[in-house]
Amino acid sequence: MTTTVGPQYDIDSPDNLARRRHGQAVLSRIDGHQGEAVIDSLADMNPALGHHIAAFGFGDIYDRPGLDPRSRQLVTLGALIALGGCEPQLKVHIGAALNVGISREEITEAILHAACYCGFPRAVNATFAAREVFTERDAPPAN
Amino acid sequence: MTTTVGPQYDIDSPDNLARRRHGQAVLSRIDGHQGEAVIDSLADMNPALGHHIAAFGFGDIYDRPGLDPRSRQLVTLGALIALGGCEPQLKVHIGAALNVGISREEITEAILHAACYCGFPRAVNATFAAREVFTERDAPPAN
Amino acid sequence: MTTTVGPQYDIDSPDNLARRRHGQAVLSRIDGHQGEAVIDSLADMNPALGHHIAAFGFGDIYDRPGLDPRSRQLVTLGALIALGGCEPQLKVHIGAALNVGISREEITEAILHAACYCGFPRAVNATFAAREVFTERDAPPAN
Amino acid sequence: MTTTVGPQYDIDSPDNLARRRHGQAVLSRIDGHQGEAVIDSLADMNPALGHHIAAFGFGDIYDRPGLDPRSRQLVTLGALIALGGCEPQLKVHIGAALNVGISREEITEAILHAACYCGFPRAVNATFAAREVFTERDAPPAN
Amino acid sequence: MTTTVGPQYDIDSPDNLARRRHGQAVLSRIDGHQGEAVIDSLADMNPALGHHIAAFGFGDIYDRPGLDPRSRQLVTLGALIALGGCEPQLKVHIGAALNVGISREEITEAILHAACYCGFPRAVNATFAAREVFTERDAPPAN
Amino acid sequence: MTTTVGPQYDIDSPDNLARRRHGQAVLSRIDGHQGEAVIDSLADMNPALGHHIAAFGFGDIYDRPGLDPRSRQLVTLGALIALGGCEPQLKVHIGAALNVGISREEITEAILHAACYCGFPRAVNATFAAREVFTERDAPPAN
Repeated sequence: MTTTVGPQYDIDSPDNLARRRHGQAVLSRIDGHQGEAVIDSLADMNPALGHHIAAFGFGDIYDRPGLDPRSRQLVTLGALIALGGCEPQLKVHIGAALNVGISREEITEAILHAACYCGFPRAVNATFAAREVFTERDAPPAN
Repeated sequence: MTTTVGPQYDIDSPDNLARRRHGQAVLSRIDGHQGEAVIDSLADMNPALGHHIAAFGFGDIYDRPGLDPRSRQLVTLGALIALGGCEPQLKVHIGAALNVGISREEITEAILHAACYCGFPRAVNATFAAREVFTERDAPPAN
Repeated sequence: MTTTVGPQYDIDSPDNLARRRHGQAVLSRIDGHQGEAVIDSLADMNPALGHHIAAFGFGDIYDRPGLDPRSRQLVTLGALIALGGCEPQLKVHIGAALNVGISREEITEAILHAACYCGFPRAVNATFAAREVFTERDAPPAN
Repeated sequence: MTTTVGPQYDIDSPDNLARRRHGQAVLSRIDGHQGEAVIDSLADMNPALGHHIAAFGFGDIYDRPGLDPRSRQLVTLGALIALGGCEPQLKVHIGAALNVGISREEITEAILHAACYCGFPRAVNATFAAREVFTERDAPPAN
Repeated sequence: MTTTVGPQYDIDSPDNLARRRHGQAVLSRIDGHQGEAVIDSLADMNPALGHHIAAFGFGDIYDRPGLDPRSRQLVTLGALIALGGCEPQLKVHIGAALNVGISREEITEAILHAACYCGFPRAVNATFAAREVFTERDAPPAN
Repeated sequence: MTTTVGPQYDIDSPDNLARRRHGQAVLSRIDGHQGEAVIDSLADMNPALGHHIAAFGFGDIYDRPGLDPRSRQLVTLGALIALGGCEPQLKVHIGAALNVGISREEITEAILHAACYCGFPRAVNATFAAREVFTERDAPPAN
């Protein structure tokens, strides 16, 4: 029942390691290799950022039962399209949207819908990001 | 079969009037009196803006069959939370989210979820907007 | 006099086709081949987005007589510089600004002016976008 | 011919005082009492910010001959509408737009136009800001 | 040594309660009653958001030894001024800046400095937020 | 004692030349060759923008004694991370942060800290910008 071993900021304490591993499992379930790649890409430069994206973003938040993955990805699409300048993250989350069962047609429709709220330029950029994701999915696997 | 009577920008041409009426019907279906109130509030100052929010935003876009209303409202919530500074519109769309069957718990969960992508301050502001909407809904009707 | 054939969302209905063709004509008048290229680039992925940029953005809005093209492009420059992250769209609209008679000197002055409202970094990015457009215009035509 | 008396940051050096006075004259020419009120409202808290808005923003930039005041206000409207959350500044600049000869109809048209680039919510907020300005102008002067 | 009792999303599990209490202690050290008031204000509507602002934002991040509180508040000021539309949060963090030893003069100077990166309107809004905080601090305590 | 020779907008007047030279000296002190490169890169396209970044941004503002360079760079980091879409400017200012004595660890910690206020995607982009700067610094000098 007892708990925090070491200071809370120690991302490699047993508690935090368990939290991160749980978050990484959630992330992998949704994003597959792409999600892991994001965390790995931060490991040398900003490991705490990678830890918290996994432990907090996916373990603490994404895995909460109050909203299903499909709904979460729709909120995420709306937020990332509106923010702009987040095309790499948008690509990861368009992939995640596909993974949780949102169709390509729904994704492009969501982008069109978002245009009413954040304007055409952001929607055009999001469409190009979606094209890159769809094209990658259509490519025959390298071997 | 032929069509456009008068120039396309004439928002009161028969064609555009039909488009606007259709959009207003969609808007009323989703937002009830609140949506009409937005369009009405623009009628004196910028009637063309009101026309296009109805005719384009709701008639042309929202009513498209490619994405269900629940999904549209989730994308809208993500976009408006991330944009910031749109609290009046966010309130209208939190009401619309309730109208299309998104629960209060899902709305607050969507706000928490969005915090990962656009930060805590925007999520706190959105929570206060949601409280106002929920409180209004709980108030006994005036008579 | 009667009108809407088929549901409003059908972008290829006679009415919508007429609206889009009108918008494309407006777009071509302002942007020449560049504007068409934007619509074409969306045709495979998000044809409805391309349709609405043409039919709504250019046919319904841009062509309205209440504001001359020069003034519209100045508003557009201000908006796109401030938004940031829209460099491809900014380039198209810097080209459009030249097409409607705004001089290179006025464009760079508009960018400097916008810096007061949205800061130096966005103005520097806009200057680099403008350089690309001006350089393309100076290049001898391929043949 | 020689110049800078005291360090450049001394906003009350003879040079900077001259620069500020020039900027205030430009600001008053455009904004009348409203512009002065903005600078005055900063005098107790952040006099250097007020100084630089006048000396740099209006004296150095706005007064440059490369772009006429009408064009500058159109760029400013586009930028402030797109930024969002700047309604007080937007109101000042809608007033300035009227002062330099942009009509009420052109202002509301500019807001509608900007909606294509930054979405409807920002355009609705800008319309309400414009209404406040127009209403104040219509009010009979207090005496 | 073992740890997570109950699912990670259970914000009242022993582990998460300990994490939140730690975060609230950090928040109280910096923000005093104001910080607690923010968390309390979320308790009815979005308790998980309040939990994560405390547990993650202050417990996990703010308390990390890699950056001193003064530096953290300067980063926060830059971010909140640039975001815009976060005046309530900006007020809390201007208060926190004072609490960690940043002087009033440094805060207004930071706002002036930020104007170069995000423009004058955001800096003017931030100055007004700072005035409200300073005025509240100058008011004699109610009794 | 007297002053402004020529109109204030003449960026090559003796006064403005002195102001710009002073600003360039401040910029070079902080940014070394990188800062000069930014001004130089604007010289052909928008020399007045380059002038004002130097004369106003660095000469008038950065050199003010009210905030030390370390603090200024922390505010700048917060603002640029939050704005997004300013990666080139962020890279210059991460370099400047190193130059004024902010450690690599403090920079990545500042990025993690900013994530609470503007979300993870902007923090991830900033981390990649920081990696590029750190890598360039680690490269053996070309000769």
